Amino acid sequence: MAKVGRLFGLVLRLLALGATMSAAIVMGTSHERASVFAISFEAKYSDIPSFKYFMIANAVVSVYSFLVIFLPAETLLWRLVAAFDMVVTLLLTSSVSAALAVAQVGKDGNVRAGWLPICGQVPKYCNHVTGALGAGFAGLILYAMILLYSVHTVLYPLLD
Amino acid sequence: MAKVGRLFGLVLRLLALGATMSAAIVMGTSHERASVFAISFEAKYSDIPSFKYFMIANAVVSVYSFLVIFLPAETLLWRLVAAFDMVVTLLLTSSVSAALAVAQVGKDGNVRAGWLPICGQVPKYCNHVTGALGAGFAGLILYAMILLYSVHTVLYPLLD
Repeated sequence: MAKVGRLFGLVLRLLALGATMSAAIVMGTSHERASVFAISFEAKYSDIPSFKYFMIANAVVSVYSFLVIFLPAETLLWRLVAAFDMVVTLLLTSSVSAALAVAQVGKDGNVRAGWLPICGQVPKYCNHVTGALGAGFAGLILYAMILLYSVHTVLYPLLD
Repeated sequence: MAKVGRLFGLVLRLLALGATMSAAIVMGTSHERASVFAISFEAKYSDIPSFKYFMIANAVVSVYSFLVIFLPAETLLWRLVAAFDMVVTLLLTSSVSAALAVAQVGKDGNVRAGWLPICGQVPKYCNHVTGALGAGFAGLILYAMILLYSVHTVLYPLLD
C-alpha cells in the first residue's frame, strides 16, 4: 500500500514537472515580430513584468520538482517537503494570477483606462502566452493535489 | 497554555478581519472624476476586472473571518477550519497578485504594448488602490500566520 502511494506521488510530481517546465519554456519562447503603420516591433514575454515573474516562478518550481523526485524514500526531509510544497503552491497561485490578470488586459484591453488590446497585432504571441498560462494552471492544480497528498503522508504515521 | 494560544489565534483573526475588510472597503470606494482634453470621465475600481476580483475575494474572506471568530472552542469543526484557512490563503494570494499586476501596469504603463500609465490623470484613485493593496497584503501575511497556527493546533493533540 505504501509502495502504491509512493508511486502515485511520483507520477504526480513527474506530471507537475512536465507542466511547469512547459509553462516556463512556452512563455520564454513567446515572441513575434509585427509591424503597425510601417513601424516594426517585436513582442516578447520580457516586455511585461508579470510574464517574466511567471516564467521565473515556473522555472524555479521545475527545478524544485526535479530535485524532489530524486529524494530517497526513507528520510525525514519529507516533512520539510510538505512545507515546501505549500510555498510552491502559493508561488504558482501568485504567478498564474498575475500573468492571467495582465493577459486579460492584453486580450480585451481596457476601454476606461485607454489600453488597447494587443492580440490583434500579435496573434502568435498571444497564443503562446495562452498556452503557457494553460500549462501553468495545470501545474497549479497538480501541485494542489501534491500538497494534499504530502500533508496526508506526514499525518498518516501520526494518525495510526 | 491552551488559553494563551487561543487568545493569540483570536487576535490574529481579528487583525486579519480588519485588514481584509479595509482592503475591500478602500478598493470599493476608490473612484475619481477627472477630465482629459475636456472629456470628463470617472475612474472606478469596477472598470478593471482584477480589482473587482480583489474586492470580492477580500469581502468573502472578511465574512469567513467574522464567522470563525464566533466558532465555539470545543468543536471538531476546527479541523475543517484548518483546511478552509488554506483555501483562504490561496484566494488572498491570487487576488493580491492579480490586482498588483494590473496596478503595476496602471502606474508604470507599458511602452511596448502602448499602454499609458493612468496615475497622472487620477492620482487619488491610484492612492486608494495602493492603500487597498497594502491592506490586502497585510491580510495575506496575517492569514499565512493563521494557517501555520491552525495547522499546529490540529497537529498538536496528535503529536502529544
